[in-house]
Amino acid sequence: MPDNHAPDTTRPPVTVLGLGLMGTALAAAFLRAGHPTTVWNRTASKTGPLVAQGAIPADTPAEAIAASPLTVVCLTTYDDVTAVLTPLTATLAGRTLVNVTNGTPVQARKSAAWAEEHGIAYVDGGIMAVPQMIATPAAYVLYSGSQEAYDRHRTTLSALGGTRWTGTDAGLAALYDLSLLTGMYGMVMGVAQSYALVRSEGISAQDFAPLLEDWLNAMTAGIVPRTAEAVDSGRHLTDVSSIAANQAAFPNLLHTFADQGVRPDLFEPMRQLLDHALSEGHAGDGLSRLVELLAEPR
Amino acid sequence: MPDNHAPDTTRPPVTVLGLGLMGTALAAAFLRAGHPTTVWNRTASKTGPLVAQGAIPADTPAEAIAASPLTVVCLTTYDDVTAVLTPLTATLAGRTLVNVTNGTPVQARKSAAWAEEHGIAYVDGGIMAVPQMIATPAAYVLYSGSQEAYDRHRTTLSALGGTRWTGTDAGLAALYDLSLLTGMYGMVMGVAQSYALVRSEGISAQDFAPLLEDWLNAMTAGIVPRTAEAVDSGRHLTDVSSIAANQAAFPNLLHTFADQGVRPDLFEPMRQLLDHALSEGHAGDGLSRLVELLAEPR
Repeated sequence: MPDNHAPDTTRPPVTVLGLGLMGTALAAAFLRAGHPTTVWNRTASKTGPLVAQGAIPADTPAEAIAASPLTVVCLTTYDDVTAVLTPLTATLAGRTLVNVTNGTPVQARKSAAWAEEHGIAYVDGGIMAVPQMIATPAAYVLYSGSQEAYDRHRTTLSALGGTRWTGTDAGLAALYDLSLLTGMYGMVMGVAQSYALVRSEGISAQDFAPLLEDWLNAMTAGIVPRTAEAVDSGRHLTDVSSIAANQAAFPNLLHTFADQGVRPDLFEPMRQLLDHALSEGHAGDGLSRLVELLAEPR
Repeated sequence: MPDNHAPDTTRPPVTVLGLGLMGTALAAAFLRAGHPTTVWNRTASKTGPLVAQGAIPADTPAEAIAASPLTVVCLTTYDDVTAVLTPLTATLAGRTLVNVTNGTPVQARKSAAWAEEHGIAYVDGGIMAVPQMIATPAAYVLYSGSQEAYDRHRTTLSALGGTRWTGTDAGLAALYDLSLLTGMYGMVMGVAQSYALVRSEGISAQDFAPLLEDWLNAMTAGIVPRTAEAVDSGRHLTDVSSIAANQAAFPNLLHTFADQGVRPDLFEPMRQLLDHALSEGHAGDGLSRLVELLAEPR
């Protein structure tokens, strides 16, 4: 019977390249799940805390990659990935590379093409979590690319959080990731501007927060599915909240920002987009029409 | 014993001025709750459907106001309110005016001062609902101004939906209303841009919608209270999601918009604000720092 306190060597080994905040969180999650974990970082000093948790430090990325059938790379940019991995195609050949470096769909597709050319099984990943959330129930990672490689390593990858397959087009994980981030940044803009407004009257943001949270949840529950339905069907006409009504109400917001000494910058383009929608004859459409206008060269 | 089918004349009478989509919904809600309801509209033809539901049409706003201790005014703009009510101060004196016309805090305070001067009890209202939602559990109205008048008529006003008192400063209902709308418009910008992005790859918005809704709910639950706490305390330092990390990641979004043929207009000011935050030395702060920067003349 094995000693329960020894590393569980029945779990497949995994390698993590890049030990920033996120890479460190990923390696720590693999270690906690019992995977022999080899780590490498350009600045070797960053391996210290992980080695204390049982990680195996590698002196070079080649040595790190050679240690495992699966390498997860988490660097700052795709340029860093290219710089580190281009010389190592021979070592990577026949292994799986999961690239969770932040990038665009175009970059992911380029990496997938490069990997295919060199016989490397490539999976692109989009991490929907901050480092502190890794391996918690709230965290998940979007994957795309080689479905065979994904299926083979899915159990290992599930140490990081939920796994969501988006498709064999390697660009899809990044596309979904950035689309979700885009939604979040819009929400952040609204919340920041909203708090700036209540604070301009000396109202406590924490007093206002429950009202704002309830309101945003109610609006999200209505607007997200209703907009999707309108966009997919191309039927934008509404009897609920029209472009005309929103365009007419919008100046109230901007006047209030001015009256209260709050900068309007984040909301000016929305006014212009509503004006544009009206001038294009979409008065009776809902706000879902804006999705079409955003896809249109003006 | 009264006939159950006759109007319930024990409920206080109420007058509604302005029968657009919203005014009509308000009058219908009062009627359904059993209030004798007098209605007036500049274009008399709009009273027809309400009269069929039992409303009493008035030929002039003065006649309408004289019929009830409480008048709810719902016109297109504050200028319309001024034009209609300025000649009628004698009729309004001693009665309560609840103004739910969309406007700014400054306009609401001006109306309250005018009302006070003429012995009119003034309550300002901000309706957090579209007309179709009036009198449903999801609808509520924010009120501010004369608390005595609000308390006196609260039961009648509850026919429209939930009632939320915000304070004796008449501008507060409009301020809360516009702050919530601001939050919503931010969310709408994010959702519209997000759908434009997924649609650029031909992905169904409805397939993506559940992922987006879950994500926004999770982000709202974290960001709304956490930002409020940071803003109230002035402690913006974070170890979760820094200005530096967001500023570094943001170009990925804008490159992806460009790659996918989606207009970046709605998100350019956010990039500029993040750049500004970094140049002002807030690299280690969370996004809550943006609230302070929005309140700052640049």
